[in-house]
Amino acid sequence: MISIHNEPQPTDLGDVRVANRAVVLRHVRLHAPCSRADIAARTGLNKATVSSLVAELIEQRLVRETGLTENRVGRPATMLVLDGEPYAALGLQIGADELVAVAIDLGGNRLLTWRRAFAAGAVPPAETLRALAALARRAVGRVTAQGRTVLGLTLGVPGLVDSAGAVPLATALGWRDVPVAAELRAALREPAFAVGVDTVANLAALAELRHGAYAGTADLVHLTGGITVGAGIIAAGRLLRGGRGFAGEIGHVSLDPAGPVCSCGGRGCLTALVGLPAVVRRLLPDAEADGPITDYLPELDRIVALARQDDPTVLSGLADTGRHLGRGVAVLADLLNPEAVVLGDHFATLAPWLLPAARSELAARALAPGAGGCRLDASTLDTAAALGGATAALATVEAGRLPTR
Amino acid sequence: MISIHNEPQPTDLGDVRVANRAVVLRHVRLHAPCSRADIAARTGLNKATVSSLVAELIEQRLVRETGLTENRVGRPATMLVLDGEPYAALGLQIGADELVAVAIDLGGNRLLTWRRAFAAGAVPPAETLRALAALARRAVGRVTAQGRTVLGLTLGVPGLVDSAGAVPLATALGWRDVPVAAELRAALREPAFAVGVDTVANLAALAELRHGAYAGTADLVHLTGGITVGAGIIAAGRLLRGGRGFAGEIGHVSLDPAGPVCSCGGRGCLTALVGLPAVVRRLLPDAEADGPITDYLPELDRIVALARQDDPTVLSGLADTGRHLGRGVAVLADLLNPEAVVLGDHFATLAPWLLPAARSELAARALAPGAGGCRLDASTLDTAAALGGATAALATVEAGRLPTR
Repeated sequence: MISIHNEPQPTDLGDVRVANRAVVLRHVRLHAPCSRADIAARTGLNKATVSSLVAELIEQRLVRETGLTENRVGRPATMLVLDGEPYAALGLQIGADELVAVAIDLGGNRLLTWRRAFAAGAVPPAETLRALAALARRAVGRVTAQGRTVLGLTLGVPGLVDSAGAVPLATALGWRDVPVAAELRAALREPAFAVGVDTVANLAALAELRHGAYAGTADLVHLTGGITVGAGIIAAGRLLRGGRGFAGEIGHVSLDPAGPVCSCGGRGCLTALVGLPAVVRRLLPDAEADGPITDYLPELDRIVALARQDDPTVLSGLADTGRHLGRGVAVLADLLNPEAVVLGDHFATLAPWLLPAARSELAARALAPGAGGCRLDASTLDTAAALGGATAALATVEAGRLPTR
Repeated sequence: MISIHNEPQPTDLGDVRVANRAVVLRHVRLHAPCSRADIAARTGLNKATVSSLVAELIEQRLVRETGLTENRVGRPATMLVLDGEPYAALGLQIGADELVAVAIDLGGNRLLTWRRAFAAGAVPPAETLRALAALARRAVGRVTAQGRTVLGLTLGVPGLVDSAGAVPLATALGWRDVPVAAELRAALREPAFAVGVDTVANLAALAELRHGAYAGTADLVHLTGGITVGAGIIAAGRLLRGGRGFAGEIGHVSLDPAGPVCSCGGRGCLTALVGLPAVVRRLLPDAEADGPITDYLPELDRIVALARQDDPTVLSGLADTGRHLGRGVAVLADLLNPEAVVLGDHFATLAPWLLPAARSELAARALAPGAGGCRLDASTLDTAAALGGATAALATVEAGRLPTR
């Protein structure tokens, strides 16, 4: 109800132009096809300003005119749509058992989605970063060959990422103090575009905000699964990062001091209860009979097959997992009061069997009536973190800064 | 590292003036005494704009010229300071065993701090709201008699507060579905000023952000104590509210499924482990011998007296309490990565005995090295929520809107 802006910012005319350019771009993205008059009427900008901004955006090929005209009284108006075809960005993601690359154009169209089997937890960090750089170079080559300019690349890492793009700790990978952004830039050999690093959870949350079933929801959490569990938190339309960029680490919050031991050294952490290794161990007690599990995705496929056959042990284990998951989501609901929590990775794969128990537990545990309006659903996005990485790399243009080609 | 603004807003010239007025006010608040030239140089606004805005602010008595001049080469510059003396706002707070009223002027100076013994949990909501209205009317009368205009009033309630100022649930008070803002406005009989309602935790966090030892810290949590426990979360300089305004409910997050039963019906909630009633029961097992406890503050005084005498049972109970508290703070650190968590109410009173164990537990439990830089300290503010309520009521003027007298 009360809104205190901590830091009002002075506005000069250059900033105004950048801000207004962002407003026009956003309006076209959300409401295309639309006319210049529509934009002026709906944004409150005057018509001359809109015309001047649109001219510039057309010249930069960020917006284009369609052949269509608006059906109305008076002079027919030319309709505008987002162009953005000349511009692309890349997202990379270190997943369980795989590396992923996604490229999109400024209009949000997927240009490529590549998955490469790779066990990042089993090799030194430098080897993973070399493999990522090789994957990125091939993807950039493909996109460039189509006549597009790559504006940026963002890598998603399952772990803590600091504001310089270094990873102090990634328990899922066994990484400690790895200068990821610096090493990736070096491995890419002076790329002409910006290289960023963020957590898979943050990037997946950005993908949800822009491309998911709850796109545009101001208070939204994406819960990543896989080897570790993490939350990407959108609060009031922005990613919540905290003081050093380490927010969202729900995976190592202890829900039960008497619970199973976790890879972080704690007990009863959400990761130890519902992370992919914990789920495989709970549901497929035989999986470790031949030694440690190296690939989790085939085991996940086995679980799905058994669940589809109504295997009673697997169904009961999935219901238990759903209850633990619901307790974790209730913590998010109590602290953040999101409008929706969206489940990614193995939670999305197993959603048909996890959601009933998880939703009951959320409703029973959260303090606010009806869990404060929090919906719980599976993500509809494939490779959300990589998609979010590509989305994040387009942020400067969307904020109204013109690209340099 | 990446910042995606979800909703760029169009800027028109009226907005620019309001925004720039807020920038000038803020600069004077933080850097007074300062000259018009200082303001222009430090904010990037041009000198003519600053002069015009300052003239208006002086006329409204929001800023005044001092007799001082700057010691420098050239024409001496007249120095400016915040005036704001003609304007005041009121904050109210429902505390354990008491109602509190605080008034401040626009410069942040306390005009009055009144505490009135009142057991809000033992009477119907309407009686508490009538008592609050009576307290507010007397405080407004006092402030008005000093020649000041009251711009607004905000009440802090220990419970869930929705965006309309209604309270769906306040377990500490036994309230359910109370339209607090509407009833308080009615009891005040058409006040000439804005009336708002928020949680005590949110208001206390605003008070910390403005007036506390960590003032200006962008990522900050205030943890309220008393009958129930709640978090007021400042993220990136703004209060985190969530979709329906119910964020910050750490008090009913279960830390132990085998823990003590809580007033919310759950088990092992942070409130059931470290709320004031739990602490009194743990440390003073005889306190309930003569029937249910009605006043908690005298029991808190007894605990402090025994701790000062190094009573071994009390010291050991306080260390246990500190450990539980540290586990709760670790959840905040993992999810929000604040730069500081500040403890209010009985946690502040008992801080000398709680902090050592709480800090150790925080360091051991939080995933990020060094708890992600999170400091844990006692609040230095008295009646933080009421102070924050008064601060919040000044927000529209601070955002650059001129007061109407």
